[in-house]
Amino acid sequence: MTSDLYQALFAPAAVALVGASDVPGKATARPLNFLRRHGWAGDVYPINAKRATVLGERAWASLEDLPAVPEHALVLTPADAAVEAVRQCAELGVTVATVVADGFLPGTADGDRRRQELREIVDGSTLRLLGPSSLGVATIATGLALTGNAAFVEHPLPAGDVFVASQSGSVLGALLSRGVEMGVGFAGMVSVGNELDISLGEVCHAALDDVAVAGFALFLENLAHADELADFARAAAARGKPVVAYKLGRSDDGARLSVSHTGALAGDDAVADAFLRAHGIARVTTFDALLEAQLLARRIPISASPGRRVAVVSTTGGGGAMAVDCLAAAGLKVTAPAPMTAARLAGLGVEAGPGALIDLTLSGTTYDTIKGALDVLLDAPEFDAVIVVPGSSARFSPEISVKPIIDSATADTPLGVFVVPAAPDALRLLRRGGVPAFRTAESLADAMTAVFSREPVRPAVAPVQVTGTGGGAVTLDEDASYAVLEQLGIRAAPRVVVDVDRLPTELPVAAPAVIKVLSAALAHKSDVGGVVLGIADAQQLQAAASRIRSAVSAAVPGLSVDRLLVQQMVRGVAEVLIGFRRDPDVGPVVVLAAGGVLAEVYRDRSVRTAPVDLDQARAMIGEVRGLVVATGFRGGPRGDLDALAEAIVAMSRLATAVEPTVVEAEANPVLVLADGRGVMAVDAVVTLAGSAP
Amino acid sequence: MTSDLYQALFAPAAVALVGASDVPGKATARPLNFLRRHGWAGDVYPINAKRATVLGERAWASLEDLPAVPEHALVLTPADAAVEAVRQCAELGVTVATVVADGFLPGTADGDRRRQELREIVDGSTLRLLGPSSLGVATIATGLALTGNAAFVEHPLPAGDVFVASQSGSVLGALLSRGVEMGVGFAGMVSVGNELDISLGEVCHAALDDVAVAGFALFLENLAHADELADFARAAAARGKPVVAYKLGRSDDGARLSVSHTGALAGDDAVADAFLRAHGIARVTTFDALLEAQLLARRIPISASPGRRVAVVSTTGGGGAMAVDCLAAAGLKVTAPAPMTAARLAGLGVEAGPGALIDLTLSGTTYDTIKGALDVLLDAPEFDAVIVVPGSSARFSPEISVKPIIDSATADTPLGVFVVPAAPDALRLLRRGGVPAFRTAESLADAMTAVFSREPVRPAVAPVQVTGTGGGAVTLDEDASYAVLEQLGIRAAPRVVVDVDRLPTELPVAAPAVIKVLSAALAHKSDVGGVVLGIADAQQLQAAASRIRSAVSAAVPGLSVDRLLVQQMVRGVAEVLIGFRRDPDVGPVVVLAAGGVLAEVYRDRSVRTAPVDLDQARAMIGEVRGLVVATGFRGGPRGDLDALAEAIVAMSRLATAVEPTVVEAEANPVLVLADGRGVMAVDAVVTLAGSAP
Repeated sequence: MTSDLYQALFAPAAVALVGASDVPGKATARPLNFLRRHGWAGDVYPINAKRATVLGERAWASLEDLPAVPEHALVLTPADAAVEAVRQCAELGVTVATVVADGFLPGTADGDRRRQELREIVDGSTLRLLGPSSLGVATIATGLALTGNAAFVEHPLPAGDVFVASQSGSVLGALLSRGVEMGVGFAGMVSVGNELDISLGEVCHAALDDVAVAGFALFLENLAHADELADFARAAAARGKPVVAYKLGRSDDGARLSVSHTGALAGDDAVADAFLRAHGIARVTTFDALLEAQLLARRIPISASPGRRVAVVSTTGGGGAMAVDCLAAAGLKVTAPAPMTAARLAGLGVEAGPGALIDLTLSGTTYDTIKGALDVLLDAPEFDAVIVVPGSSARFSPEISVKPIIDSATADTPLGVFVVPAAPDALRLLRRGGVPAFRTAESLADAMTAVFSREPVRPAVAPVQVTGTGGGAVTLDEDASYAVLEQLGIRAAPRVVVDVDRLPTELPVAAPAVIKVLSAALAHKSDVGGVVLGIADAQQLQAAASRIRSAVSAAVPGLSVDRLLVQQMVRGVAEVLIGFRRDPDVGPVVVLAAGGVLAEVYRDRSVRTAPVDLDQARAMIGEVRGLVVATGFRGGPRGDLDALAEAIVAMSRLATAVEPTVVEAEANPVLVLADGRGVMAVDAVVTLAGSAP
Repeated sequence: MTSDLYQALFAPAAVALVGASDVPGKATARPLNFLRRHGWAGDVYPINAKRATVLGERAWASLEDLPAVPEHALVLTPADAAVEAVRQCAELGVTVATVVADGFLPGTADGDRRRQELREIVDGSTLRLLGPSSLGVATIATGLALTGNAAFVEHPLPAGDVFVASQSGSVLGALLSRGVEMGVGFAGMVSVGNELDISLGEVCHAALDDVAVAGFALFLENLAHADELADFARAAAARGKPVVAYKLGRSDDGARLSVSHTGALAGDDAVADAFLRAHGIARVTTFDALLEAQLLARRIPISASPGRRVAVVSTTGGGGAMAVDCLAAAGLKVTAPAPMTAARLAGLGVEAGPGALIDLTLSGTTYDTIKGALDVLLDAPEFDAVIVVPGSSARFSPEISVKPIIDSATADTPLGVFVVPAAPDALRLLRRGGVPAFRTAESLADAMTAVFSREPVRPAVAPVQVTGTGGGAVTLDEDASYAVLEQLGIRAAPRVVVDVDRLPTELPVAAPAVIKVLSAALAHKSDVGGVVLGIADAQQLQAAASRIRSAVSAAVPGLSVDRLLVQQMVRGVAEVLIGFRRDPDVGPVVVLAAGGVLAEVYRDRSVRTAPVDLDQARAMIGEVRGLVVATGFRGGPRGDLDALAEAIVAMSRLATAVEPTVVEAEANPVLVLADGRGVMAVDAVVTLAGSAP
């Protein structure tokens, strides 16, 4: 049973086309045209105030004149007229209105006014709104092409079981035509536009109950409604319906464009990556792999520790080598058959090569050889997936060439295919047989990586709500920041706070020490001469205190230096940054980064949505390349990475901590001491939610 | 005028097919089949000792029985019989023999013996040999499909002006079929196999004089015959015939596979990159972009300082955004129109968007709008290339949609197209119109990057020949290594060599100093306790000397510590490694890498073939990301990058230096001092060619 909203969107009994044009070439004439072309069987009410007929069909002057209330109204008029049409829909009891018009971008006077008007209409009625700036919806099997997207002139439309939701309307057309070419079909398609009311996550969630939908392909420009997307993703994982996404914003230019395009902030791409992965969504980085990854994701269950070991078997040496090169470069483990497997292959006359590639060229490419080899490989415990790379035969005798592959694809171990020649028929046959088949090794590698990178979905954790940094946040000084970290279980290097007017007569920590000005008002202590290193005794402490006092006073007139932090200098095996912040879109995230200036240059970091558990923290440590220096690299000492993992987990718990309620925290650097000795923060800054002083 | 070799390979009057089979399904029956299928007009002599006819045509028992000597013999028999056939070819005066058989891999007893036999036959005659392990050659326009590659059953073969040379035979078939699908045609194709005699570079060089050949597409597994490839590339650049290559070996697995596949060492992929770039060869990283990059390379001349500024204009918002994201992520500069250009666009009713994307969706997608906008953009001085991103119209009315693009493509500024929907007809029309058209944004970005990364080809510099490290090389101690660097003009930090038994009474350099054991036999001084830092005076020097003496003696029994290097400790703004070595394939290379352990982890380095000039050295500095710390990063000091560039140039001159003849040199670290103060090596090791002691 699907919801009323879903019924109204994708299976209404009647639809109204507000502003349907009588001029065949116009975009506003298309929806009627498409509904007829694709044989939709419901009632269609064209609304046109100036004409009695539209494209030869009876038209009505207004929504009020209709003989019945349609569940779904597609509003094709310009922005201000569209607002009025939406108002009428609400008054009449229409279930959902889809608004196509642009002109609703935030930050413009007209846009803000129109958004406010729509918001009030929706809030004051039972009407739900798709858009504005939506290109419409389609249910492929019934011919409900409720859209002006020119691509829906395609005939027949490719019916199937993939549900597509997109923040870009024009991209639906590209996916539709690529689906036709690929042999991939769709259940429904929706362009969500500006998501003023119905979000992408909500509409996908509503589609989960549709038995015709086997999986989801998303085109994302931003994560403005991440909560609803997360709810949907959790539900989809529970039903075993895979979700694959392509998201813009990998480059800064792309991110900026997304902002200008939709008015929503694009945010940090690594945060988007972490969010999608944590919610079991496979993120492909190539558009070309989006639909194919959908097929692959159905074959590979989400796993906390995916193996990534792949066999590559080919009937073309060069093509097989390309696949190995691409897969390995993408981080997959191209694996040679174990002795037992190699022996079984030899029994079929197949010699596994000296490298990892299993080349069938010399053994012959008959059905029996290929099927036999695949059965052996799919049965071998050392592979998490098997990749087949057929050569020319896929082009010239597609049925014969792909038959053994399709016949083998019932095994538990997933199969993927990279077809080296141009062989559109073989690709279509494979995909229709449920086998993910790719025309480039890069899109295969992209899809495999995306699907293996999904994390098991965890139960929703409600992060504590904070007022945010706007107005009510309080930044703590270094000592108070350490105190917050200590409350979490993260140690700082030994320290004592001293009054600058009553300095101790002995160094209060083990030498050598560092002396730092203590003030929540100073973000960059070193830059203003507020730090002195290598203090051996009380006399040096005294000298350092004077130096700091005069340097800071000179640099920041009006700031009085009252207190100093005396901290023992400790030496670590490695330096890291552990950070926590609340992303405006996806909520709390924890960041681990290699320490030092260079790490920033290399962007060497790992991001997860918070909280994380120990396994996730260990995975984060594995992703920060610079931390190899703490693994006994080149005979060096090993760092206490267990303690580091615990510190990451501790930091991530700020997501749900009510007391203190932290907006943002950063321990940087944290020294990873030798194995067994733990980790120690040697600088930190914590910002609490709270009332402004 | 093409050479006799080229004539015999690609335009012979008669060919012999040694070992042609009468059994239609067999691979050895295919060449005769293909020659007839594609209407080749020359004489064909099937050779089959057991049959009077082959596939219904007269056969001969042996090469000796032929009525005339063919210029080209395709030898289809197994390895040992193939060697005998090659011997007969040599005796009869055949110009070129192509050997298909495997069984010639170095390192196996049979393989080595057969290689030796072939080598002796070739050296003792005028016969030239293609292969072994070649899948043959083809001249598309004449139907000379002298190959058993199953893909040549394709009919008609796609004739055109691209010449393809490949180290993998099966890949030829993939390119042939992809060319058919894409609308790209070929002049000739050659599978060079193991390159025992004729190398890929030589055969391409021979094809340069063919007026039917407009450009080259190479599939490379290794650079075993880099000299001949370099000669060809220089000649191709001089003729303005672009060369594009896909090379395996980006991953370690791929590189290993290449070794096992061909018996040749794959080498360091960064070195391969440097070699190809320095020879004006555009290296794509996606196979899908190989043929399309060929078209793009014809439009973009090689430049020492390519601008990389691209305009992106689209009739699909989402597709345009994908293009911007991909191009920017690949390092291209997606650029918004300058005010003058924006004004001209506005005159056509085109509003340039708030981001860099020029979206024509709202202005309408008529011929006049698109053509007008393209003319303005192609004429604007702020763009080095213009990218067009058409939407659905490319699928449904390809002729109309691509016409303005093809009509605009005569401008000097190059055009590239990313077609977002599945639109095979539009892609074919564009490519036939000479416009590089891509079906993914990633392959477009790959091709653009590859084409812009080519460097102007420099005249050949004959590197000095050295005996190599095998047997005759001498590794110098640190002091002698500095002396070599100083001869080149690279300074070391101030230093004095002292006798461990007669230590000076004063520290001979400014304090603080570092004391190091001086011995060519010790590769890693620190690891054996041979280095003491922070020496302030002669007394500390004495203590350090004893410590070093006992530590080194304990760690390396039998090594006597006689001399120490006392060197002033200096502080730099950044640390780098400058290295020089002679790659076994491509010859001398110079390497610049960020200093420190992390730089190794991040593989942050730049490689060029040596020698380099100052502009190249500056480009190398720009490629090492870690050197951003020497550019006044975050208000820090600027390093003397001019002096660093000079040091790189100096190091690279070792390529041609006769005295001393250096096999390998590494200055690591080299400290980049503050601007104006130069650079100083603080450790170095140089290996000279020479006789073993």
